[in-house]
Amino acid sequence: MLATLLACGISPEKVLLFQQSMVSTHAELSWILGCVCTMPRLAHLPTFKEKSASLKDVPLGLYIYPILQAADILSYKATHVPVGEDQSQHIQLTQELAKMFNKRYGYCFPIPHAIVTDNVYARLKSLRDPAKKMSKSDPDPKSRISLLDKPEEVIIKIKKAVTDFTSEISYDPEHRPGVSNLLSIHSFMSSKSIDVICKEVQGLNTVSYKKLLADVIVAHLQPIQKEYYAFLSDEEYLHNILKHGAEEALAISTKTLDEVKEKLGLKYSATIKTRVASNN
Amino acid sequence: MLATLLACGISPEKVLLFQQSMVSTHAELSWILGCVCTMPRLAHLPTFKEKSASLKDVPLGLYIYPILQAADILSYKATHVPVGEDQSQHIQLTQELAKMFNKRYGYCFPIPHAIVTDNVYARLKSLRDPAKKMSKSDPDPKSRISLLDKPEEVIIKIKKAVTDFTSEISYDPEHRPGVSNLLSIHSFMSSKSIDVICKEVQGLNTVSYKKLLADVIVAHLQPIQKEYYAFLSDEEYLHNILKHGAEEALAISTKTLDEVKEKLGLKYSATIKTRVASNN
Repeated sequence: MLATLLACGISPEKVLLFQQSMVSTHAELSWILGCVCTMPRLAHLPTFKEKSASLKDVPLGLYIYPILQAADILSYKATHVPVGEDQSQHIQLTQELAKMFNKRYGYCFPIPHAIVTDNVYARLKSLRDPAKKMSKSDPDPKSRISLLDKPEEVIIKIKKAVTDFTSEISYDPEHRPGVSNLLSIHSFMSSKSIDVICKEVQGLNTVSYKKLLADVIVAHLQPIQKEYYAFLSDEEYLHNILKHGAEEALAISTKTLDEVKEKLGLKYSATIKTRVASNN
Repeated sequence: MLATLLACGISPEKVLLFQQSMVSTHAELSWILGCVCTMPRLAHLPTFKEKSASLKDVPLGLYIYPILQAADILSYKATHVPVGEDQSQHIQLTQELAKMFNKRYGYCFPIPHAIVTDNVYARLKSLRDPAKKMSKSDPDPKSRISLLDKPEEVIIKIKKAVTDFTSEISYDPEHRPGVSNLLSIHSFMSSKSIDVICKEVQGLNTVSYKKLLADVIVAHLQPIQKEYYAFLSDEEYLHNILKHGAEEALAISTKTLDEVKEKLGLKYSATIKTRVASNN
C-alpha cells in the first residue's frame, strides 16, 4: 500500500504517511468522542444500516467505526477532508461531534469540511458493465484496471471491455457509456482533454482504438510499476517513512489530546507523552 | 481519591496506583476487543438495560463501557479481579472476549476470575433504611458514614440511625436489621467479632450503645483522616505516585498490546513505545 502511494508520486516530504494502528491517540480520542455521541445517532447512518442489514450478530466495530473515523480527523484538527460521496454522512457526524464537544467543554476543534471530488475521473465505470462504477471490491478483476496489472492483462481487459455496435469513437456518456468510459480513462492517463483525444483517434474503429488505449495505459503504468517494485525491495526505507510519519502524527495528535483532556478535567493525564522506539 | 487510598493503608510499594486516562493502551485494546464483540451481547448486559431504560438518547459510552472494563483487566493479563456482586456479569463478558480472542487469533489472555467479596462488611446497610444497602450514591448523606466525616457528623448520623423499639442490643439481621447493621459496622471498625461486642455492651440501651459506637467510629477514622490531610498537602508526592504507576502500567500493558497487535497482523505497530514525560 505504502509503496503504491509512493510510486504514484505522493511525497513523504509533503505528506505524513503513517499507519493508524501505530498512533495510540486515535483510539483514545475515539473513546472520548464516543461519550459525546448517542446510540440512535450511529444507528441511523446509512453505511451502518446497509452493512448490518445482512448480518445476524453485528460486530460492535462496524457500529462504532464512524467514531474512530471522526477521531482520525479531529486528532489533527483537520479543516478539509477529501472523501468519496459515500463518506459525506460520516463527515457530517464528525462535524456534529466537533460542535457538541466545543459547546460542552469549550472550543477545541475547527469544523471539518468534506471535499467530494466530482468529475469523470472520480466516476470511472466498470469495464464489464458501464452502468456500475469501477470498484476494487467487484468480484470480477476484469472489471477494472489495477495499478499492478501486467501489460498483457491490460491488453486483454481493454479488448474485452464492453462497448457497443457503433464502430467510430465518440464521447456520449448517456447513449455510449462503454466507449465514453474508455475515453475518460484515456483522458485521465494521458492528461489530454476528451475533445483532443476524439480528434486524434478520428477514423479508428473500436478494435484499433482499444489497442491504442491499451498502449497508453501500459505506458502510463510502467513507470509507476517500476517505482513500486523498487520501493518494495527497500523495506527499511518504507519502515522508516512509517516510523517518521507515526512520530510526527503522534506529536500533533498528542497535543490535541492533551488539550481535550485538559478541557475534560482529566488532571495529570496530559503528562503522558509517547515516542516511537528505535528500531527493534 | 489517591490520598484516601493511601490513608487507608494501600501501599504504593505493593500496588500500582495510576489513572486509567494516563495509559493509552486501555483505549487501544478496547477498540480491538470491540471488534471481537457483537452488539446484541452488550445490549443484554443488565447494568446497561437498567441505566439506559430511563434515558431518551443513550450515550454510546454507557453501551461500550464494559468493553473498556474488559480492556482494563486484559491489558494486564489479570487472573483474579475483586469486584462487587453487580460487576460479575462484566467479568463474564471479559472472560468471553478473552476466550474468543484466544480462539480466533491464538492464545494471549488467561481467563480472569471474579473474586466477589461476600460477608457482612460488603453488605453494610443504609443508616436511614436498613432494607437498602449503604451507598455513596444515596441522595441522603445521613444514610452513610464517609471516611472524611467530622466527629460531630458521625455522632449525629449514628444517633439518628434507624433502629427499633427494643432497648437491648442483640444481633438478629432478620428481625432487628437496624441494630444488627450497627453491630456489623462496630465489628468492622474494631476488628472484634459480633459475639464479643454483644457481650461487652450487655446492659447498654440503644441510646448509650449509639454513643459508644460513635466513639469507636471516630477513633477509627481519626488516624485515616490525619494521614489523608497530610498526603493531600504534598501534591508532588501524589503526582509522583501516579506518574510512577502510569509508567509501570504502560510498560506492562504495552507488552500485552504488542502481543495482541502481532497476533492480529498489524505489522510495525508494535514498534511504538510510550513513556511518561518528565514533569511539565
